[in-house]
Formats: sequence, structure tokens, C-alpha cells
Amino acid sequence: MKCRKCPSTASIELKRHNSALCKDHYLEFFDTQVGRAIKKQKMFTHDDKILVGVSGGKDSLSLWDYLLRNEYDVTGLHIHLGIGDYSANSFVATKEFSEARNADLITIDLEQSYGMGIPLLSQTIRRVPCSGCGLSKRYILNIEAYKRNFSVVAMGHNLDDEAATLLGNILHWEISSLARQSPSLPSKGANLISRVKPLYTMTEREVAANAILRGISYIQEDCPNSIGAKSIVYKEAIDSIELNSPGTKHSLVAGFLERIRPLMENSQDEFHLNDCTICGQPTTSETCSFCRMWANAHQKASSNNN
Amino acid sequence: MKCRKCPSTASIELKRHNSALCKDHYLEFFDTQVGRAIKKQKMFTHDDKILVGVSGGKDSLSLWDYLLRNEYDVTGLHIHLGIGDYSANSFVATKEFSEARNADLITIDLEQSYGMGIPLLSQTIRRVPCSGCGLSKRYILNIEAYKRNFSVVAMGHNLDDEAATLLGNILHWEISSLARQSPSLPSKGANLISRVKPLYTMTEREVAANAILRGISYIQEDCPNSIGAKSIVYKEAIDSIELNSPGTKHSLVAGFLERIRPLMENSQDEFHLNDCTICGQPTTSETCSFCRMWANAHQKASSNNN
Repeated sequence: MKCRKCPSTASIELKRHNSALCKDHYLEFFDTQVGRAIKKQKMFTHDDKILVGVSGGKDSLSLWDYLLRNEYDVTGLHIHLGIGDYSANSFVATKEFSEARNADLITIDLEQSYGMGIPLLSQTIRRVPCSGCGLSKRYILNIEAYKRNFSVVAMGHNLDDEAATLLGNILHWEISSLARQSPSLPSKGANLISRVKPLYTMTEREVAANAILRGISYIQEDCPNSIGAKSIVYKEAIDSIELNSPGTKHSLVAGFLERIRPLMENSQDEFHLNDCTICGQPTTSETCSFCRMWANAHQKASSNNN
Repeated sequence: MKCRKCPSTASIELKRHNSALCKDHYLEFFDTQVGRAIKKQKMFTHDDKILVGVSGGKDSLSLWDYLLRNEYDVTGLHIHLGIGDYSANSFVATKEFSEARNADLITIDLEQSYGMGIPLLSQTIRRVPCSGCGLSKRYILNIEAYKRNFSVVAMGHNLDDEAATLLGNILHWEISSLARQSPSLPSKGANLISRVKPLYTMTEREVAANAILRGISYIQEDCPNSIGAKSIVYKEAIDSIELNSPGTKHSLVAGFLERIRPLMENSQDEFHLNDCTICGQPTTSETCSFCRMWANAHQKASSNNN
């Protein structure tokens, strides 16, 4: 197969764009698409101080790499989750990436900072690991960005992630979750930092192609806790439809953002954000979910020890 | 496995209800669910004159059977689509059902009434068969109900059908189609008859169980044109999620009807219905899609013959 733009052999076929591109034209295409998403969703400018959440996987490293190459003011934040070899390898990939590029990296170790890694936390509070893990990552990214004066938190979520989350919210029609689902959530008050997903228009396969063609060395194993996770079931269901009708993931997410989310925002009562009585972070309750979860974990751990 | 309601052996397991029922209790459950749907969606009463669309499959025969057993004023309408053995067998199953129950049946033969069966129509206008077929069925049910003074058109669509159609509309966010998707569409003017789907809360498997346990002899083969149809791809995707999370089909459809469709209705401009200049049936254009399709088909057929 030939590249759509030059006589070279194509490196990747893009069925949903009815196209195929060589390495150089694909990397150019990737950057153009990400740049457009940043601009269209008014995510940030070169004046912003960006904190990018980095797991060491293809998505977060591709995003960090894009931001560094395009000379944004960016720092990586890696959260060591304590999930055995998976977390150890994630940290190595992240550290090697940052050292090779002389890029700023902050690391937060969940066990050192909060007393437990994800496996023990999940076991102690008897909740599926993904629930405490997602909450911890969102919380830590926001509070670290707030404490260190970053203006934007950037995350590597790709189109497959967004489509799967959207499908999950649709299957149960969670209006408040749907109203919050956006690749660009503006700041709400000083302690709730703007949160953006610059790769939200690129599929998982397209981001992997970028990482591979750019020679980014990323951790390829999936988190062991993701086996059987609902998000995987949703991704497989959407993949089977995409295979039959290329472009479905994009039309699902883009159509929702353009035509449906505005209806949901209008239908939502304006919710009031308080400062958590324990940590001062934003919450719709008195105490935020993160502080409640850890209070619960430490209480259960201490009664287990007695 | 025992029946949840009596000591008998269960005939069917209902994972989404965390239940299992014997034959008698399942048939009672089926009738209760269908009766509730009719009442909740204000579909019809015993004062209505109901025309039920009957293909000869498990869904339409289960619905007709329910309406007859519950002494509604109901007549079956079978459309002979001219799809080879499939249509011939469909007609036989329908006719045998109506004769065994002494039930009123009207048959419309597409080829005799309009000049072509679905295969020739599809070939002539070069459109996928399902598109012309669905349009023809909807149109003929409405015009026959109108001409013969029926007050309601009832159709056998089950929860799987509704979930697949809804998913298809969601994947492309067709707001006008979403706003029209309902198990109970009220009449709009004298020539647009009320249209209801009393089985919309029962899954395909649950309707099949009803048909089998009641000894209804239905045509089991699928329409040969349905192979590779988008609706099948959507059904398979939803089935894979339902298997992992029983109840998903129901929460998708019920949540949409309760919480989302009202938002879409409000966001829609009130559309104006005209009488088709050819047939007098309701349309948002000058000529209705059915008349336009057949005018196109006859024109192409005559130019092919010249």
C-alpha cells in the first residue's frame, strides 16, 4: 500500500479516514490532529504551566513527548501505585523517558504518601481496585497541580478510552457523569485545576502507532487489575462495531460533545463546590471522596490489626 | 434449578431479574410485564381497534396471542414481502396461527399491490433491502390502519430490537430519530395512527421462551437479508455487554425514555406534517418517502426495460 501523500510505502492504514500514510506523513498527521484538538477545545497555550499525568504507557508518553517537542512548559507527574511488577515497570519506563529528554518529573508514591498501595487499599476497603485507583489518580493530579501552581492538568486518554467511558455512562444514563464528560473541563475555583485530554480524537491504535514510529519506549503490559474490567468489555463491544463501520468511535464521541452534552449541561442544576473539611480540595459534600476513602481504609486497617 | 415462586423445576433463568421461573409462573410473569408496559405507556385500552403487524416470527405472534387472550379488539396485518422461501414460510406460519384461533387477518402482497417484492425493489433502486423493507412496512401498516379505521398500530419489537435501534441512533447521535424513538407514539392528525410496541420491555430470549412455552408455531429462520445488517452488529455488541452485566439492555432503553428523550423532545423544533401530494399520507416533505421510493423504482424499471 502506498502513502496517500507521497510515493513511499504506507506504514499505517487509517480506515476511518479512508487513508494510508508513510511514517513521516503519519507523524505529521498525528501532530496536526492533536494540535487541532488542543486549539478547538481551548485546552491551553504556551503561557500555561502544564502538569501531565504519566503512567509510562503509550498514551501518556506520546502526550508528554508531543508537549515537549512543541515546547510547552510541561512537567510529568507519575503516581507509583504499588501494583507489583506492573508499577515497577511503569516507573522505569517513565523515568527513562524523562532522563533521556531531560524533562521534569515529579513522582508520588501512594504507599509512602498515603500509607497503602492500590492492592492493599482495595483489599482493606473491599472495593474493586479500579475504583480507588481512578479516584486517587484524579485527586493527586489535581492537588499536586494546585500546590505547585500548575494551570492545567493534561491526561493521555485516547478516543477508545473516551468512547468506552461514554458508552458506560450512556448504558446507565448517568446524567451528572455525562454532563462532566469532556476533553476540556475548565477550572472551577482556585483549587479545581483545568483538566484536558489532548489525545481524545486519536484511537488507541493510532496513539500506539505514534509511540512506535517515534521510538518511544513504553510499558506494553496492561494493568493486571484491568482483566474483566467493565471498560474492557465496553471497548471490545465498540471495537466490534468500529470494525464493521469505521469512524463509529469518533462519531459517538464527537456527536455527543457537539449536540448532546449542551442539552445535559442545561438540564443540570448548578452544583455548589465546598472545600473539603480535611484537605481543602473541592467537593460537593463536606468531606471529599478521597479523604472519606482513606479515612475508611485507615480505620479498617487499624481495627483489623487489633 | 427451582422456580422462585413454587417448588417446580424452573423452565427459564432470568439473570437480569436474579430469578428463575417454572413454565406457569413464567407465562404469568410475561403477561404481567406486557400488561404493565401497555398501561405505563398508555398504549391502548379495550375500547381501541388494534391492527397488529404480523411477520410470523416469535415476536409478532406472541404479541397477537397476548392481545387475543386478553380479549382486545385486534386484527393481524401480514405483508407478503416476496423474499423467496422466507416470505412463503412467514405467510404459512401467520395463516396457520390465525386459522387455529379464528383471528382476523388482512394480507397485503407487496408485489401485487405495488408492483415489486423487496428483492426486485432493492435491486432496481440500488439500496440495501432493509431500508426499502422497513419503510414499506411502516407505511403499509399506517395507511391500512387509517383506511380501515383502526385506532392503534401495534408492533412486536422486543427489548433487543429497541436497544439495537437506540444504540445505532446514539452512535451517530441522530437527534430527530432519537426524539421519535418511543414504545408509544401518539397519533398526530387523522392520517398518522398511534403506534405502539407492547413487548419493548421483554428481551428476544424472553419472548422466544413465551412463544415456545405457549406452543406457538412460529417461523424460526431469520430474513436472509439480515445477514451483515447493522442491527445484527449492534445486537451482538449489546449482547456481549449484557452477558457481563445483566440488565444493561433494560437500563439503556428505560433510562433513555425516562431521562433523555424528554430533553431531546424539548430541543426539537416542532415539525409540520403535510399530506403527501400523491397518497395523502403524512410527510414532512411534499411527497412522502414511500411514494418517492416507488416512483423512483417504477421509473428505473421502465428505463431498464427500454
